[in-house]
Amino acid sequence: MAIYKAPLEDMRFVLNDVFQAEHLWSSLPPISEVTRDLSDAVLEEAGKMVENLLFPLNRDGDEEGCHFEDGVVTTPKGFKDAFKTYAENGWTAFSGNPEFGGQGMPKSLAVLFEEMMHSANSSFALYPALTNGATLCLDAHASDELKQAYLPKLYSGEWAGTMCLTEPHCGTDLGILRTKAVPQDDGSYQISGTKIFITGGEHDMVDNIIHLVLAKLPDAPAGSKGISLFLVPKFLPDAEGNPGERNGVAAGSIEHKMGIKGSATCVMNFDSAKGWLVGEINQGLACMFTMMNYERLSIGIQGLGLGEASYQSAVDYARERIQGRAATGAANPDGAADPIIVHGDVRRMLMTMRALNEGGRALSAYVGIQLDLVKFSEDEEARRKAADRVALLTPVAKAFFTDRGFETTVLGQQVFGGHGYIREWGMEQFVRDCRISQIYEGTNGIQALDLAGRKVTRNGGRYVESFLAEVRHWIEENGQEAGLDGVREPLVAAVDRLQVATEELLRQAGDNPDAVNASAVEYLDLFGYVTYAWLWAMMMVNAAGRDDDFGRAKMITGRFYFERLLPRGEALARQLKAGAETMMSLDADLF
Amino acid sequence: MAIYKAPLEDMRFVLNDVFQAEHLWSSLPPISEVTRDLSDAVLEEAGKMVENLLFPLNRDGDEEGCHFEDGVVTTPKGFKDAFKTYAENGWTAFSGNPEFGGQGMPKSLAVLFEEMMHSANSSFALYPALTNGATLCLDAHASDELKQAYLPKLYSGEWAGTMCLTEPHCGTDLGILRTKAVPQDDGSYQISGTKIFITGGEHDMVDNIIHLVLAKLPDAPAGSKGISLFLVPKFLPDAEGNPGERNGVAAGSIEHKMGIKGSATCVMNFDSAKGWLVGEINQGLACMFTMMNYERLSIGIQGLGLGEASYQSAVDYARERIQGRAATGAANPDGAADPIIVHGDVRRMLMTMRALNEGGRALSAYVGIQLDLVKFSEDEEARRKAADRVALLTPVAKAFFTDRGFETTVLGQQVFGGHGYIREWGMEQFVRDCRISQIYEGTNGIQALDLAGRKVTRNGGRYVESFLAEVRHWIEENGQEAGLDGVREPLVAAVDRLQVATEELLRQAGDNPDAVNASAVEYLDLFGYVTYAWLWAMMMVNAAGRDDDFGRAKMITGRFYFERLLPRGEALARQLKAGAETMMSLDADLF
Repeated sequence: MAIYKAPLEDMRFVLNDVFQAEHLWSSLPPISEVTRDLSDAVLEEAGKMVENLLFPLNRDGDEEGCHFEDGVVTTPKGFKDAFKTYAENGWTAFSGNPEFGGQGMPKSLAVLFEEMMHSANSSFALYPALTNGATLCLDAHASDELKQAYLPKLYSGEWAGTMCLTEPHCGTDLGILRTKAVPQDDGSYQISGTKIFITGGEHDMVDNIIHLVLAKLPDAPAGSKGISLFLVPKFLPDAEGNPGERNGVAAGSIEHKMGIKGSATCVMNFDSAKGWLVGEINQGLACMFTMMNYERLSIGIQGLGLGEASYQSAVDYARERIQGRAATGAANPDGAADPIIVHGDVRRMLMTMRALNEGGRALSAYVGIQLDLVKFSEDEEARRKAADRVALLTPVAKAFFTDRGFETTVLGQQVFGGHGYIREWGMEQFVRDCRISQIYEGTNGIQALDLAGRKVTRNGGRYVESFLAEVRHWIEENGQEAGLDGVREPLVAAVDRLQVATEELLRQAGDNPDAVNASAVEYLDLFGYVTYAWLWAMMMVNAAGRDDDFGRAKMITGRFYFERLLPRGEALARQLKAGAETMMSLDADLF
Repeated sequence: MAIYKAPLEDMRFVLNDVFQAEHLWSSLPPISEVTRDLSDAVLEEAGKMVENLLFPLNRDGDEEGCHFEDGVVTTPKGFKDAFKTYAENGWTAFSGNPEFGGQGMPKSLAVLFEEMMHSANSSFALYPALTNGATLCLDAHASDELKQAYLPKLYSGEWAGTMCLTEPHCGTDLGILRTKAVPQDDGSYQISGTKIFITGGEHDMVDNIIHLVLAKLPDAPAGSKGISLFLVPKFLPDAEGNPGERNGVAAGSIEHKMGIKGSATCVMNFDSAKGWLVGEINQGLACMFTMMNYERLSIGIQGLGLGEASYQSAVDYARERIQGRAATGAANPDGAADPIIVHGDVRRMLMTMRALNEGGRALSAYVGIQLDLVKFSEDEEARRKAADRVALLTPVAKAFFTDRGFETTVLGQQVFGGHGYIREWGMEQFVRDCRISQIYEGTNGIQALDLAGRKVTRNGGRYVESFLAEVRHWIEENGQEAGLDGVREPLVAAVDRLQVATEELLRQAGDNPDAVNASAVEYLDLFGYVTYAWLWAMMMVNAAGRDDDFGRAKMITGRFYFERLLPRGEALARQLKAGAETMMSLDADLF
């Protein structure tokens, strides 16, 4: 059966040892009082909560799914009560703005908390994930009046938020969306249209649901420059700020999906619903990107979290299940067979999962730290540099975490053999739940295009240059550390390879408009493997001095990463060099 | 929505042009009358049948699944009637022994028929696939009396067959199985035990179900040397050979699975059931391998068939769905957006699917031809050589077809974006149905171990040497053909790489007993990519002379394979070189 325990030791290692987060936080006044003791305690409490409250609902939630009847959506048994407890204990306010009732926790801590949430119950985790993104967006772009009216209730978990972008005929291409917003005399707007794939669009866990909706004014310019953002509550707040009159928005149906069945994915019909503008007119897409960038990292972490849950379950099974004998002779001579963890192929799978999960956790924390710097640093240059890093790494985190997460959940299922395919064991649910993370929040192809296009070729490689300079500087400072014995050369070679590939991509993009689109996925994957290599090197330098089991395991896993996973980048670099020609030359009719 | 049309043009190209099957068949007396006209007509009829009879039941069969009540298993609506039609039209007898009512069709034709079956309805296809394997096994190993009593009814589709290996505590490691067979005075045996994961163990489509069961005699030697094979019918045939008295075997339950939900996966309880020995006592595993090798190729083809169905559906969607604009300027200027097939990333996915499917189809036909030679050739040396080739390539086909098939179904789902995750579109079913093919019939890790262990290191690389000699000979003969411009060098480099990797594997295996197990999967993958490269080269030589759309598409797809997929082998070769040390050095407790 699937199991899950929050990987506290590794989380603390990443936060405290690798990134010395306490030291950083202490230099950032708004979070300077977050100490190592506090963050350790928070992680421990979060771990208990997800293990005891959310994980037990995961399997049944999948079997039962959500229900839809006459516009009412019911979440699986236990979800509503669990959410109440979750909110009452303050978890909905975790990194919210303290001015409106948030707890103001650092993002570098929040990413680890989010990982636990997705490990334990991805369907459940999506409800607060959407609310968190909505609050971030409102905090950044809404009027003070809207903030006062909505943020406290969203932070308290009494209300929840959604993100309404996709329509039946458009997802990636929001420029052609049809939802209309008609200005009213009172300064509000009447919103009409249909949105699909709305996570948590309707459900029974909160008193009110606040939709952030992209729509077009009647006279808006064509394309994505004519999109505005609106706040549309399910119930209009009354004079006391409590849910009052029902607004003209309702769920038309829920989707029957491959996975995340406990998450209500709704068709939302807006029928002259009352809404309020957030941000400037026609600046809606830019405002929504505050939410989308949050969700992209969060969905990346969904892949990571599911990979961790699958890994732990697979290790547990591999220690218990006996089958065959070790190639080197019986390891369990008194038993009928040896536990399958003795077999090279099972170890290949477990080590791959482990190396990818731990590399991903480190990158997730690194991005979290950059987000803390963007938000809290008093040094403008540090903020700008961190913002560039976040821009560069957000698509990498979203796509690479979820692609590797999917690979990891599939490997975990494979360790279980035939039992992995049977629903009651829980391993195939991780696969199904993870699969969506590669698709929504911008497919991974779109993430790759964001990276290779907007973040690399369209600024002449400036972000990558700065990032690679940081990596090379780190290698200069740490290259002689004993922890890097045997991996120093592959690390340098990998960094060189990414640089050459970046130059290649820039060159190709100059020659052929299709080139970026054609090589973007390979480029992003290569970027991911090289970045993990750097983070693994950091971890190995930190672990080398430790004379304990944790340190030994870390060193072996790091070496495994360099030997067995980093080489994938060599093939990717070669593929990328081929360019777009063959890919684009087959007539559409001839497929 | 998912669509499917049998890819007749490509199947005929492979059979007639690439392998000149008619010429081969004409030299093999038992199938010498199978002409190109006949095989073309058979494929066309098969195509109509799967498109009209089986594919329409695929989606609903998944939604409904099988039902279990009081030991009775009911297949999804329509399956029973469809099976009746299928059997009445002779498809159950396709490649059966004509002596007992089979149609004796060549295997090289049957593999293409099987591909269509799995494309159209994998759950349905499994029922005849198991029966086919059982008849092969009985034809090879059973007494004449058993053959006379069972083969005609199995070929006619009145009865069906199963394969009963796995038990709750053992799957891969059959040496520890517990099912008992007690000899009776009448020459029969009493079989008792529990078997799990039995495909088609119980269902409502036939009058009788014939189980081939592995069990141990009371005095059998320990381990796999003490396993015997038994035929155990659900109903004991009466004096007329019709189903008579109910035997002591019944389904205890069915599994609730990730996919192939229309296929009944049963727990089978044998309670002093009457059975008859097939083959010699304690030779059961060897006899069962006749069936298992058949099923391994067949399950490989399941991956291939699902990849093809997913590809066709994805192409159809990519031509219709409009979203965004081509990087080179509007391709559909009168529409709101361009069809997504203009985008490089969508093409990357479609071309990858296409290149893997067509490469796989060619390998499947190549293995089919080797099986025809093994069975029908009058030249002992040709039979031996072909048998060596089948031994070498069966694990490659099973694992590589299904791993690439899974990759392909995931890509096809990805092309659909969010709609790919919604059940009604049918794309996620292909993924779920395909996933089992990597697990059952010996996990792909076990296939890799079979290849790297039994088929390579344990005979000093003799099979590979002979195979690579054939490939090199082909390159010598065809290397100067115009169709190979630009791919000649990568092909030769790939063959060299496989040879070096084989030598490396042999060297490692001599030093460390864990080495084979640790590198087997990388070795098998490398083997697969190199073999596809050779088959792509063959196809390109044949297509180069064609001045038609089919030929042009083939050439472009071939070049894509060499540019974008073959390079994966470089990484695999590098990973393999790392050996077993890091993989095996982490204490089991430290995972």
